[in-house]
Amino acid sequence: MTIKKRNPVAVQDAIKKVIDVVENESIMTLNIEDSLNYILAENVIATYDIPRFNKSPYDGFAIRSEDSNGANGDNRIFFKVVDHIGAGTTSDVKLGKCEAVRIMTGAQIPEGADAVVMFEQTTEEQQGFKIRKQFVHGENIAFKGEECKENEIVLNKGQMINSGVIAVLATFGYTKVSVYQRPTVAVIATGSELLAPDEPLQPGKIRNSNGPMIQALCQELNIKSTTYNIQEDNLQGCINIVEEALSNHDIVITTGGVSVGDYDYLPKVYDEINAEVLFNKVQMRPGSVTTVAYKENKLLFGLSGNPSACYSGFHLFTKPAILKMMNANEIYPPIVEAILEDDFKKANPFTRFIRAKITFSEQGMYATPAGFNKSNAVVAIAKSNGMIILPSGTRGYSKGDTVKVILTDHQSYERVLNL
Amino acid sequence: MTIKKRNPVAVQDAIKKVIDVVENESIMTLNIEDSLNYILAENVIATYDIPRFNKSPYDGFAIRSEDSNGANGDNRIFFKVVDHIGAGTTSDVKLGKCEAVRIMTGAQIPEGADAVVMFEQTTEEQQGFKIRKQFVHGENIAFKGEECKENEIVLNKGQMINSGVIAVLATFGYTKVSVYQRPTVAVIATGSELLAPDEPLQPGKIRNSNGPMIQALCQELNIKSTTYNIQEDNLQGCINIVEEALSNHDIVITTGGVSVGDYDYLPKVYDEINAEVLFNKVQMRPGSVTTVAYKENKLLFGLSGNPSACYSGFHLFTKPAILKMMNANEIYPPIVEAILEDDFKKANPFTRFIRAKITFSEQGMYATPAGFNKSNAVVAIAKSNGMIILPSGTRGYSKGDTVKVILTDHQSYERVLNL
Repeated sequence: MTIKKRNPVAVQDAIKKVIDVVENESIMTLNIEDSLNYILAENVIATYDIPRFNKSPYDGFAIRSEDSNGANGDNRIFFKVVDHIGAGTTSDVKLGKCEAVRIMTGAQIPEGADAVVMFEQTTEEQQGFKIRKQFVHGENIAFKGEECKENEIVLNKGQMINSGVIAVLATFGYTKVSVYQRPTVAVIATGSELLAPDEPLQPGKIRNSNGPMIQALCQELNIKSTTYNIQEDNLQGCINIVEEALSNHDIVITTGGVSVGDYDYLPKVYDEINAEVLFNKVQMRPGSVTTVAYKENKLLFGLSGNPSACYSGFHLFTKPAILKMMNANEIYPPIVEAILEDDFKKANPFTRFIRAKITFSEQGMYATPAGFNKSNAVVAIAKSNGMIILPSGTRGYSKGDTVKVILTDHQSYERVLNL
Repeated sequence: MTIKKRNPVAVQDAIKKVIDVVENESIMTLNIEDSLNYILAENVIATYDIPRFNKSPYDGFAIRSEDSNGANGDNRIFFKVVDHIGAGTTSDVKLGKCEAVRIMTGAQIPEGADAVVMFEQTTEEQQGFKIRKQFVHGENIAFKGEECKENEIVLNKGQMINSGVIAVLATFGYTKVSVYQRPTVAVIATGSELLAPDEPLQPGKIRNSNGPMIQALCQELNIKSTTYNIQEDNLQGCINIVEEALSNHDIVITTGGVSVGDYDYLPKVYDEINAEVLFNKVQMRPGSVTTVAYKENKLLFGLSGNPSACYSGFHLFTKPAILKMMNANEIYPPIVEAILEDDFKKANPFTRFIRAKITFSEQGMYATPAGFNKSNAVVAIAKSNGMIILPSGTRGYSKGDTVKVILTDHQSYERVLNL
């Protein structure tokens, strides 16, 4: 029986160790319709002013504002309509005194006009309309370049491509966009106790839930991972499968085999393949034996075989690393403050992460444990959308205390309609 | 010139009108690895207890706790190791007095044992170990059924399938899952001023950014939409394309053509195809002319042609409707409170929605306008991750005031690592 002494590092330091060792400058070009959630690898430059021309934001009439001088309820001024512009057409008319052009939303303001009268602001007359108020220069006009100017950098590289970015690219006529490549990920569940979900149960065995869970966690980051077969506890088998996975992927995630048990072969595997272990003990519960190793700009995540520990380890270490390797600007877990809805009287020698249900309300955010919360719990993960953080060296949290929480699942907050 | 009087409805009432008219009970079966982000159409039942058996949460030795009675630093008690259990194997040994079984994390506790001594709590001896503390019944044991019991409903239908749900399904041996079908969506950008992103510019014309933007907004909801060609302002053409789209989809989203202009044909289209208009004016800016119509459990969204108005309309009306038609539990926009970082002195006769950048900090959430914010703005959408709500009938908001905001993009919050 040999227990190698491990040196536990603080969670925050461990996260930094992971993201500090990797980078990715590999770029590829995508059609804009395939680019959602990738990271911009280039600044986006305006190819023309927006608006491209002075345009009408309303349906109405383009006029010369000076012709409206003195208009009021007692002095209605008549304008003669001399042309008509729908969106997408233009008019060559140059307005004369008290002349107007009927104009539709989005259409180009004709020469000479400097204000738009909305339909609602007119009374109809033969061949024209009357107004009862004075208009000022520029009233109801969207000016050329008021949003942005040609050659301006409108979006910076490093931004994640959202629907608005796609709208901007389309506006400026970009049909292709440069993005950073995403890392490739392999998932290997290890453990002789593991059965595939479709295998019949056997004494002492359990089904592999970590593999499918990590595949889904990667999918949430828009990464299609490669899932290897379950690897039994066999040193040479582990070495072979990890080496093969590492030769074909940027990230290899294993679950299980990182503790101090007789069949915990991952520490030995990192040794045999000459990977540098960044840490093999973290000041956290669950998942203190989470191990991350590094080799040639590739990362090996040795996550716990316990589902809750595995899940926490992914959110704390793997997700920031994937985002860093995607070259995203924002890579850290989103952390907010919430009000505890339960007591946690126990001491926290290591930082405790508790799968929790976070709710938004007008009074703020609330956090309540998502269920049975031991390291091996699985149902609580499914019911959680965040993790309560109880820092190491603390104790005695009570209902009503404010704590930090990591938001993990943004789709499941309970919410009411109350604008 | 005819202006039909429209009756503006409150935003909240408009949202309710939309979600009240649709439902979807269509179910399909998926492999669990394809089910992420679908909605559970059945409760998930535990097919056995979790844990399945009393198990060791640590690497160590299983003992009978009674044999440790009286152990302390001055009275170390010796245990003889009589068997060895790795995870996935079991032992037939029945423990006798001061006998122990070496046991690995996750393995089944052997008969007679009722506590586990961790490696770190022992000193090694010939053929066994000594301990210096007393163990109580159940110490360091994960008990059969302590998380959940066979036949218990562990997850309820209506929940969105996240990575944890997939782990639960795998654990219980479910390889397939019943989910609600997602609605099918057609996108039609209308307007004679619109050019495709790859077309050369022409006077008075602009590129279609709404079509690609809505396609991306659907994709964020995991819905692959059908994008039709740009439809010019032509009544019969509009009728034909909307009818065709409606015959093949549950939702038809058009952009443009809903205002009071001479070529705004959508009101006429709804009339011609006998769709019931739920509302054609909303007490909101931008996008007051947003129109939603209904026909035979299908919805027609007439969104504004102005990008910011179109984007807001999608988040306020289309997204909740899509989630309702997916049968999600949580369908409303996530609304939180944030502190304004800018003044908004103007009156808000209608509720104003301002594309905004929301930041989390330990002091709370902050909201600042994402840029130029008129209805036709497009760059500000890309820079936003939320919308500030200034309710109708208010005025004079100042920096530092607390306002409600809708969260729209959960990936782009600026965040620091501060556990």
